[in-house]
Amino acid sequence: MAAGPEVDGLIQMLARLPGLGPRSARRAALHLLQRREAVMLPLARALERAAAAARTCAVCGNLGEQDLCAICADPARDIGLVVVVAQVGDLWALERARAHRGRYHVLGGVLSALDGIGPEQLAIDPLAARITAGEAREVVLALSATVDGQTTAHYVADRLAGLGATVSRLAQGAPLGAELDQLDEGTLAAALAARR
Amino acid sequence: MAAGPEVDGLIQMLARLPGLGPRSARRAALHLLQRREAVMLPLARALERAAAAARTCAVCGNLGEQDLCAICADPARDIGLVVVVAQVGDLWALERARAHRGRYHVLGGVLSALDGIGPEQLAIDPLAARITAGEAREVVLALSATVDGQTTAHYVADRLAGLGATVSRLAQGAPLGAELDQLDEGTLAAALAARR
Repeated sequence: MAAGPEVDGLIQMLARLPGLGPRSARRAALHLLQRREAVMLPLARALERAAAAARTCAVCGNLGEQDLCAICADPARDIGLVVVVAQVGDLWALERARAHRGRYHVLGGVLSALDGIGPEQLAIDPLAARITAGEAREVVLALSATVDGQTTAHYVADRLAGLGATVSRLAQGAPLGAELDQLDEGTLAAALAARR
Repeated sequence: MAAGPEVDGLIQMLARLPGLGPRSARRAALHLLQRREAVMLPLARALERAAAAARTCAVCGNLGEQDLCAICADPARDIGLVVVVAQVGDLWALERARAHRGRYHVLGGVLSALDGIGPEQLAIDPLAARITAGEAREVVLALSATVDGQTTAHYVADRLAGLGATVSRLAQGAPLGAELDQLDEGTLAAALAARR
C-alpha cells in the first residue's frame, strides 16, 4: 500500500522498533495520522525533548536526566550495596521488582566472542574504581543465566577479587509460580544443587 | 522506574499506541534513547513530516499525500467499481490482498448506537453523490461481519437503492485454511447457506 513517501517512510521506521512489526506499525501510523494534533505532533516533540534531556549517570551508567541518575542522587539508598547489571533495561526490571534499595552499576553489555565484545568495551574498570574508592562494600552480579552472562559474571568476579568487596550472584532456581514439570532440566538441577 | 519527566512522559505516550503496552513502550524508549542520532531524532522528524504531508483524498477518503490519493489518481484502475469500507485500515488490508483493481469509498466508521454514531457522521451522502454523478456502476459493501458492520451495510444498501448502481456485499464463509471443526456455528451456517 503506497500512501506516499512520507507516510510509507514513517511506517518503515515504526516497524523497526522492538515490539512492532509491519502490521502493528501500519496500525500505529494510522492511529497517529488520525490524531495529528492530539497525539502525533506531541509524540514528535516528546521524542525530541527526551532525546535532549536524557543523560547517562556519571556514577552507575543508568539513564536519567541529570549528571547523577535519580537512584545515585537518592540519599535514602544504601551506597555500599551495588547490583551489577548488563543493560539499563535490567536495572529498570529490578527497580520494578522493588527488591533492591542500594545502587547499581551498568556494564553496558556482556562478554561475547560472537559479537566481538571484550572486557575493554564494558564498564568493568569504573566498577573496580568504585570499590577501590570505598564506595561499595558488597557487589551482587545480576547477569542473565546464559552462557555469555555467566562468563561475564566469572570474569567480573575475578577482576574484583581482593579489592575488598564481598561479591555474590543472583540465586538460580525455579521462578515463582512455575510448575515443576514445566521447568527445563538445567533449571531443575541448579535449583536442587542450591537447595536451602 | 523514574528516569525523569521527559523520558517517563515519552514512555507513557508510547504505551498508548495500539500494539504497544507499558512493557514494550519501555523497551522501545530504551531502544530509541540508545540510538538518539541514528533513530530517535529521525523518527521525530518523520512524524512531523508525515503529519504535514498527509491528506484525506477528496474523492474516496483514503489517506494520501495529494488531494487525490494514489488509487483515485491511478488511470489504470476501474473507476466504476467502488468498494465501500469503514476505515482506511480496511482499505489498506484489501490493497495488500491485491484482490480489487477498482476504487474505494471510506465511510469513516460504522453505525453504532452504543458509540452514538449515526448516518450523518458517516460519508454516505458523498457515496450517493458519486453514484448519481455516474462515477460508480457497481458498489461492493466490504464491512465487518459484526452486528454494527452488517447494520451499516443494510442501511447503506437501502440509501443507494434506485440510484442506478449494482450493490453487493463481501461473501461470507469459511476463511481460507480454516479447519471446519474450528469454525463457529454462525460462520458454518452462513457458509452452508451461501454454497455455490
